[in-house]
Amino acid sequence: MELAKVRQYLKENHPRFVAELGEYIRFASISAQPDHRPQMEACAQWLRDHCEQIGLTAKLVPTPGNPVVVAKTPVQPGLPTFLVYGHYDVQPVDPLELWQSKPFEPRVAKNVMYGRGTCDNKGQHLAHLNAIEAYLKTGTPLPCNLTFICEGEEEVGSLNLAGFLQKHKAELACDAVVISDTGMPSRKHPALTYALRGVACLEVKLTGPSRDLHSGLFGGSVDNPAMALCQMLAQLRDKKGRITVPGFYEDVAALSAFERKQLARLPYKEAEYKKFLGVKTLFGEAGFTAWEQRTARPTLEINGLTSGYQGVGSKTIVPSWASAKITTRLVANQKPKQVLKAVSDHLKKLCPPTMKIAIEIGHAGDPYLMSPTSELAQAALRALKSSFQCEPVLLREGGSIPIVNDFKKILKADTLLLGLSLPDDNAHSPNEKFDLKIFALGMQMSATLWPELADKSSK
Amino acid sequence: MELAKVRQYLKENHPRFVAELGEYIRFASISAQPDHRPQMEACAQWLRDHCEQIGLTAKLVPTPGNPVVVAKTPVQPGLPTFLVYGHYDVQPVDPLELWQSKPFEPRVAKNVMYGRGTCDNKGQHLAHLNAIEAYLKTGTPLPCNLTFICEGEEEVGSLNLAGFLQKHKAELACDAVVISDTGMPSRKHPALTYALRGVACLEVKLTGPSRDLHSGLFGGSVDNPAMALCQMLAQLRDKKGRITVPGFYEDVAALSAFERKQLARLPYKEAEYKKFLGVKTLFGEAGFTAWEQRTARPTLEINGLTSGYQGVGSKTIVPSWASAKITTRLVANQKPKQVLKAVSDHLKKLCPPTMKIAIEIGHAGDPYLMSPTSELAQAALRALKSSFQCEPVLLREGGSIPIVNDFKKILKADTLLLGLSLPDDNAHSPNEKFDLKIFALGMQMSATLWPELADKSSK
Repeated sequence: MELAKVRQYLKENHPRFVAELGEYIRFASISAQPDHRPQMEACAQWLRDHCEQIGLTAKLVPTPGNPVVVAKTPVQPGLPTFLVYGHYDVQPVDPLELWQSKPFEPRVAKNVMYGRGTCDNKGQHLAHLNAIEAYLKTGTPLPCNLTFICEGEEEVGSLNLAGFLQKHKAELACDAVVISDTGMPSRKHPALTYALRGVACLEVKLTGPSRDLHSGLFGGSVDNPAMALCQMLAQLRDKKGRITVPGFYEDVAALSAFERKQLARLPYKEAEYKKFLGVKTLFGEAGFTAWEQRTARPTLEINGLTSGYQGVGSKTIVPSWASAKITTRLVANQKPKQVLKAVSDHLKKLCPPTMKIAIEIGHAGDPYLMSPTSELAQAALRALKSSFQCEPVLLREGGSIPIVNDFKKILKADTLLLGLSLPDDNAHSPNEKFDLKIFALGMQMSATLWPELADKSSK
Repeated sequence: MELAKVRQYLKENHPRFVAELGEYIRFASISAQPDHRPQMEACAQWLRDHCEQIGLTAKLVPTPGNPVVVAKTPVQPGLPTFLVYGHYDVQPVDPLELWQSKPFEPRVAKNVMYGRGTCDNKGQHLAHLNAIEAYLKTGTPLPCNLTFICEGEEEVGSLNLAGFLQKHKAELACDAVVISDTGMPSRKHPALTYALRGVACLEVKLTGPSRDLHSGLFGGSVDNPAMALCQMLAQLRDKKGRITVPGFYEDVAALSAFERKQLARLPYKEAEYKKFLGVKTLFGEAGFTAWEQRTARPTLEINGLTSGYQGVGSKTIVPSWASAKITTRLVANQKPKQVLKAVSDHLKKLCPPTMKIAIEIGHAGDPYLMSPTSELAQAALRALKSSFQCEPVLLREGGSIPIVNDFKKILKADTLLLGLSLPDDNAHSPNEKFDLKIFALGMQMSATLWPELADKSSK
């Protein structure tokens, strides 16, 4: 496929793309703050207009919250269809005093643009739109149909996205989803993220005496719920960092030798990582590297402990109750419901006869995994390699991105996560930035991606 | 010694004693509430006047807080001296709506007087004053000198008592102290309390990462302070309820066979005790009865746990820190400083290398023990037996009464705790009451006590 003209167009128009990104950044599209609603709407309108200007058919689709921008390339029947997702809303800006320039007045220095939303996510999805523009404006035939959707509620939990996908399922049908909203470990490590951890939450509460008791008058003859809870929780993890809940690892998809080799290529310096976390010593499941521990292995964390007196000084009581908030991070092919049941059952088994136990199940999300050796993944890796001119890495992400599961469940489509954000881009923090070199490379990557994907999808 | 006249006087004057107790109760001498200061002063003045009326020399001794009433019998050189302690201040009355009659309008029904301060402590020390009155008014020679002190700050921590004792040490010199401010297990179990537990407090805080971390991004590769704390605390007590801190039991004075036999005489029904505490099952150090566990054995209790997120729902973090408040209850001959050191050292030893540990030492108080087979104790038991006409019991108290240690340290005197309060007398609660039969028996006991004590002290 002849992409020379597309590549050339992207190079020639780079200064305008930067100017347009600046224009886009000027909208203070903070979804969390209701008084920014007018800016949200103006921002969505700007994006719709921009999509039309580059040759897409575009519209604003209302939701119970902020509208979704939906834009499509001219339909070519018989070709595969890919969906590009982005979000035009941004995080709040506080603490404002830590910004070195105003968050919504973009500033360019040393080929980096500073401003709220530059990397998260305006710059990243604009790179894709610029690549599409290059195809359309140079008359280069696109090897696929592209649907671009951009929501305005990602920073407040994408509460209306699943409903939107469900409602417009037919119109949004696609062979795969592409999202650039994750990270790449460094400039030299363009990345495909192929797995995400799931999550499952519960809260356990032990109740002993019917009220806080005087520890002098009664202490010694009655069990202490805080102690009982500690003794139960202490038994959930062994000295080697392994979770001891029976069946916990049963469904875990083992890391392949290929995957471990890929993860081992990721840049990592233990001293720097420890400094970043602020810890003296790392700790994790024996037999796995830190990258593996935090992305490819399940965990069980105590997120909070509450019991008895928490004020200044001491209060000599045997507390009536003690509770803990617990979340597990799950990997393929663990099922949240099963894991929650296994943890609950085990806690009940560990509970001494002196205590009443109550377990409250919280929210849960599935883990996500697409095969890193699949045709789609290989196609994405080729696009990364040829644009960035270095060997891309295969990443797993330790957190969850619930919308990826929405795409999978509702549109039956896998998602390629091709993030362009560097670790120091300050997403969600003051002085958010986006590297304009990465911006340009991202456009080249997007331009290369469509023929690679179309080639594999049509097989 | 001829006590017939004294006994007769007490019987004949009982109705007046009840009326005087009622008069005394009418003062709302709530030390915790500054707006009750005038009632506090009027109450102290009434008591001083009452002491003078019965033949004592009495005065109000100012302190930085409320004055102490000090009254003395006419000095008889060469005789032993005993000090009777009481307090004229009372607890607040809320919740007022739960009182069946007004707290400061004494009501007598079925030979019981209801009102705030009836048993805690006005009725109890008035019983002693009435006995002294009987000696003085019948011209019966007292076999000892008696000093009566009554403070106005017991319910707010006796903050000025140690200073008062120190300042008036010479004037307050005595052979033993008598306090009626504890309980008796039932009408048929008049009691001498001969031991109190001490207390020692500390707080332990573990810090892992320098801030709460995203459990998705980092969880699995970094230790969790809440889990580390649970695993440490879980190791402080074994399955048999024994504290596993090395050296914890080293100085513990073992219960003698005599003491265990005495404690076994105490009324106890497991089902009732469980119901009272609101627990399904009791738990304590194996090999000891519940009475022994809660009064004669040391304990280590977690009084509070704090870590991470405590609000509604879940927060997917690895918390930066976790802390626990811990108190130990101590028995003779444990030393608070040594126990705190042993617990601190053990916690430091248990702390994993992933955590920074900080231990803050809190307040401490010595345990108290006077020999239950001593001459003084035997004398008190004889007085209890002859007045109540049943076999008295020897009690240990699980809590602390710091003033007893003050008397020991400053006046070098042991304290006989001869409490007249029944378990259902509602001290500190609505509908506080005092049994007027016990009031009368308490006067008889006091009258009998002085010759018994004087006889043993002068030996």
